Amino acid sequence: MGFNQILLVLSLLFLLHLHGSIASPDSLIRILPERDSSNRRKLPRDDYIRCDSWRFTVETNDAGPWSRIPFSCATFVKDYVSGYRYTSDSEAVADASIAFAKTVKLSGDGKDVWVFDIDETLLTNLPYYADHGFGSEIFDEESFNAWVDLAEAPALPASLRLYRELQQLGFTIVLLTGRDESQREATGKNLYYAGYSNWERLFLRGPSDKGKTATIYKSEKRKKLVDEGYRIQGSSGDQWSDLQGFAVAKRSFKLPNPMYYIA
Amino acid sequence: MGFNQILLVLSLLFLLHLHGSIASPDSLIRILPERDSSNRRKLPRDDYIRCDSWRFTVETNDAGPWSRIPFSCATFVKDYVSGYRYTSDSEAVADASIAFAKTVKLSGDGKDVWVFDIDETLLTNLPYYADHGFGSEIFDEESFNAWVDLAEAPALPASLRLYRELQQLGFTIVLLTGRDESQREATGKNLYYAGYSNWERLFLRGPSDKGKTATIYKSEKRKKLVDEGYRIQGSSGDQWSDLQGFAVAKRSFKLPNPMYYIA
Repeated sequence: MGFNQILLVLSLLFLLHLHGSIASPDSLIRILPERDSSNRRKLPRDDYIRCDSWRFTVETNDAGPWSRIPFSCATFVKDYVSGYRYTSDSEAVADASIAFAKTVKLSGDGKDVWVFDIDETLLTNLPYYADHGFGSEIFDEESFNAWVDLAEAPALPASLRLYRELQQLGFTIVLLTGRDESQREATGKNLYYAGYSNWERLFLRGPSDKGKTATIYKSEKRKKLVDEGYRIQGSSGDQWSDLQGFAVAKRSFKLPNPMYYIA
Repeated sequence: MGFNQILLVLSLLFLLHLHGSIASPDSLIRILPERDSSNRRKLPRDDYIRCDSWRFTVETNDAGPWSRIPFSCATFVKDYVSGYRYTSDSEAVADASIAFAKTVKLSGDGKDVWVFDIDETLLTNLPYYADHGFGSEIFDEESFNAWVDLAEAPALPASLRLYRELQQLGFTIVLLTGRDESQREATGKNLYYAGYSNWERLFLRGPSDKGKTATIYKSEKRKKLVDEGYRIQGSSGDQWSDLQGFAVAKRSFKLPNPMYYIA
């Protein structure tokens, strides 16, 4: 094939491509999945919108309890959490949290508390979930606990920014996680490694917390704080069970997580 | 310029374009706003993602009270509510609502209630908001009330489907709106016109409800229902103030609405 023929083919491809951009369907916004360098299969537009609507029901808690990502949305979830949208959404939540925090009048007695969940809130387990289908596989406690013991989960950058800003503002930080008491050392080590420090307390599930839902377990710990005279001004978590129940914070901040659901 | 030169330019454009697609930033998903037939200004990709993250904070209630759509997101909101995503999101919420409703064991005494908000829930005021910047203009009570009096708001199709399904299942329907008692006749007429019928009760704001937040007003009416022996199984609304407070439903369903916020 001569140079001119190659030029002709390339030109035709360009014109066809242009045409595709212009002659598109009913929606005002077209959402195109991008080819990545590995030539992965594209997610069709209708699947994208349908899965994005599934995500809406998950993030608003309309979906209620769910056990698995819809099979046809596995690629969507992978793309979302691996890409810029997850970063952007969590940064927007941090911005909203900081905007509220700045309106709180701190008493100066160290009793104004912000409660943080850990997994998918302060820390991101994406390196683990990347090897386990981004939540599309059934949760495997054994391999996840091995990952926790490595203490290598990175900070969710938006949450690290929020954490430091809250400390600057004078909030007392309390960490409240569904991780087991046996993981206390690894969890503390991981938090330091990720850049977190100077929390007031770290609650993990002890023997008396076994079998409780996260909502009950976390509400009970918050109630304990309230009984001790703390004022829970804000709370951050990727699960509604981090935020709801009783002894709830004045304002709660739901971080994105379309990978899994905890009751 | 000869044919070969034109081919060369087109080819270079194509190769540059390809390069742009491959060597794009960290995101796996690329979201491209579409040019519509009227050659409206495109929403740049970064603005799209940023505004979609703003929407995340609004729909999860992370944003808290807000009075205006961010100026740079007015086009985004217009595109969202006018396009397929709003339809898709509200249909997904209806699906989640129906899935829950089917798990409820009805007692058969007519006391199992589903509470619906009206504006942007049973009815859509998009024809009005299309003439008023899709929420980007300051709310004008006078023109909105004139629109209500016309009684021409169409049904939100997903909610009409849910409404009928709930009636089939045997739920008692209660309507609870922030509209004023003086709008009772127009509201009833509009609901019939849109295809709704056979509700048990329609609560509007009476003289004693003036000045109350929607959260308080609506909680008080739900409490009244509970005191009368009704069991509030489900509740649907586009505002968190439709769903939160006290005497809340067993399950609440947040419909999408990035146009305005009611406390």
